[in-house]
Amino acid sequence: MKISIITIGDEILIGQIVDTNSAWIAQRLNEIGLELNKIYSISDTESAILRTLNRAEELSDIVIITGGLGPTNDDITKKTLAKYFDDKLVTNQEVLHHIKELFKKFGVGEINKLNEHQADLPSSCKVLFNKFGTASGMWFEKEDKHFISLPGVPHEMKNLMSSYVLPELQTRFSVGAFVHKTILTQGVPESILAVTIATWENELPKSIKLAYLPSENRVRLRLSARGIDKELLNEQIKEQITKLKTIIPNLIFGEEKDKLEQRVGAALKKINATIATAESCTGGYIAHLITRVPGSSAYYRGSVLAYDDSIKESLLGVKIDSLDTFGAVSKQVTEEMALGIQRIMKVDYAIATSGIAGPTGGSEEKPVGTVWTAIATPNGVQSVKYKMGTERLWNIRRSASTVLLDLLHILEYNDNKVQ
Amino acid sequence: MKISIITIGDEILIGQIVDTNSAWIAQRLNEIGLELNKIYSISDTESAILRTLNRAEELSDIVIITGGLGPTNDDITKKTLAKYFDDKLVTNQEVLHHIKELFKKFGVGEINKLNEHQADLPSSCKVLFNKFGTASGMWFEKEDKHFISLPGVPHEMKNLMSSYVLPELQTRFSVGAFVHKTILTQGVPESILAVTIATWENELPKSIKLAYLPSENRVRLRLSARGIDKELLNEQIKEQITKLKTIIPNLIFGEEKDKLEQRVGAALKKINATIATAESCTGGYIAHLITRVPGSSAYYRGSVLAYDDSIKESLLGVKIDSLDTFGAVSKQVTEEMALGIQRIMKVDYAIATSGIAGPTGGSEEKPVGTVWTAIATPNGVQSVKYKMGTERLWNIRRSASTVLLDLLHILEYNDNKVQ
Repeated sequence: MKISIITIGDEILIGQIVDTNSAWIAQRLNEIGLELNKIYSISDTESAILRTLNRAEELSDIVIITGGLGPTNDDITKKTLAKYFDDKLVTNQEVLHHIKELFKKFGVGEINKLNEHQADLPSSCKVLFNKFGTASGMWFEKEDKHFISLPGVPHEMKNLMSSYVLPELQTRFSVGAFVHKTILTQGVPESILAVTIATWENELPKSIKLAYLPSENRVRLRLSARGIDKELLNEQIKEQITKLKTIIPNLIFGEEKDKLEQRVGAALKKINATIATAESCTGGYIAHLITRVPGSSAYYRGSVLAYDDSIKESLLGVKIDSLDTFGAVSKQVTEEMALGIQRIMKVDYAIATSGIAGPTGGSEEKPVGTVWTAIATPNGVQSVKYKMGTERLWNIRRSASTVLLDLLHILEYNDNKVQ
Repeated sequence: MKISIITIGDEILIGQIVDTNSAWIAQRLNEIGLELNKIYSISDTESAILRTLNRAEELSDIVIITGGLGPTNDDITKKTLAKYFDDKLVTNQEVLHHIKELFKKFGVGEINKLNEHQADLPSSCKVLFNKFGTASGMWFEKEDKHFISLPGVPHEMKNLMSSYVLPELQTRFSVGAFVHKTILTQGVPESILAVTIATWENELPKSIKLAYLPSENRVRLRLSARGIDKELLNEQIKEQITKLKTIIPNLIFGEEKDKLEQRVGAALKKINATIATAESCTGGYIAHLITRVPGSSAYYRGSVLAYDDSIKESLLGVKIDSLDTFGAVSKQVTEEMALGIQRIMKVDYAIATSGIAGPTGGSEEKPVGTVWTAIATPNGVQSVKYKMGTERLWNIRRSASTVLLDLLHILEYNDNKVQ
């Protein structure tokens, strides 16, 4: 069953609005096991509409059309559809009554001609009653092809889709189910991830499709399966994810729309622990990630951002000796920062970072991108040296997310041990 | 000149991402006087790509293609383009070198085959060098038709468009001159800004078009002029901006791509002053904004993030009396925080924030969104109470940018007085 969307309206083609309707429709179709094959976005001109209807009819079984149903002169979808189907407009009394009632609700007693004409609809279509607006939906059938025209206003479109179009499509056309699951990874770029999980990927059952969706230092892995039995598909995907977790346990930080800092917060709450941070190169970004989570004040006590070295000594109790001997970007200083903030803020866990974010400040021994992270726990302190990149903002973000992921693994490991 | 966009990728057709690239491209084309006629969104399959290329070639003069250029197996745009143009892939040594350097930057020494193949490009296209990624852009010419293939990752696509494609299209295809100037404002919503500058807007010469581009608590005002004489247009726009600056001096924080934190940094550097921050509700976000500017260590010394009230007392020297009498979210405590961090970190200027970011923690007297900001200067301290909104992240961001703008005005005012 091939499905196309045609969105009609200049506002998309001049970039004034982003087409969010199509993504919504696509998701809903997927949920009932139908796949969208193509989206056309075209202008409000008769020739473009007629040409695209023709083309979509050639290539699709179902065509969903959004937009161009308003009362003003620039909206021509309805009369163009009538022309395409060689039909004429007739007044639908029920719709006219509804339009009048709708305007009464908003305090308008008399409606004008433009609004009255909203009740004139092609005689051959099934009218889809729009309780939120004046633009009716229309469902045309032509041989085995279906054309469904909907208003572009998102909540009106969504209501017609949910209350009528989707149930009807499901009853008439959908076979089977379509299941998606997204796994969130962090730490290595797409290409290295792909090599690391190549054997697993190659051994995936044919029914499961894998997509890589990279962004910053993360890659989302989307597994999609199509079939008859939704539960079976879920089971199959779950099995593959379990396998995947044994291959890259340290790279996975969540599923679907999880956020790393939320998972860290949840892990801390679960064991009733508190945390503080002592940042240098990350410049407050770790604190920002932690505190943007609602309710973080339950476990987060605060931070000392020691951008200047003297602050590391005066506020965090880092030894002058350590600073002099090893420099600020060192295992010793970073661990002392973590232990210092843990002591000062009286917390169970503490994170510290010290590094060279760039673009300047690097040396041969410690080039830009050198970052030490330390995590103090109730049982001691551990630190790692990372080699990030040369881009300042990338280094800040990657350092922050790296140490948070390390912390999450520590918290989850400890938690596992407890149980 | 007819222009189409083809976006390639299943992620749009399953509704996982919304196509924001096309709106951005449409806006940029408009700015150079070119119009987009159609957008096709299609799946990563050879047949769909070939068929749509064919169709777009029939109907357009310029076809802009985004997506499907990644290194993994699901990305097939490049080889399909090679097939469409009956071309073969050859290794571009310059691109290969760039890819290797790019991975070095991000701490990866050896690149694998998948990444190496990113340097294999169709022999007949002009290669558009992508400095932010491994996927090159490609420009094919076939008789009078142009096909421009770009990566789907937004910042990579935007960079190639801005640095190469748009200037080239403008030179070759657009008629006349187009001048744009963007003024950055912050502090009032679009609707209030519009009323405030209504007279000015109504008196703009016919040749100048004004667009409001709102985002978060900022509104960009874009003035565009179209005509023959570029210098004259620039002159006209400059004159209007000078007028505008006298109407809303306190709302403007920059032009074009200025960042507020950069302007604050430059102002501090100019007077050779240092700064520190004491944050509560903003949770490190102000520190992050300041420190993401390269070279900020020249003027920024650090921060105490006193999320827990006891830290305000122990590390910032806020009086217990003030906390008990007025509460943490108060003029007294916020001013004491600013003066405390100014003293402890021995800086010329200091910023402090204390507020209720939400979603919980509000009271009738101090509802969610109540935020006090204080700025300590060499001459004393001043504070302001703001009423932000109910969304946590919005409150954090808006508080941070509001106090930075207040600081900028103080720095610029002082600077003006000195001179």
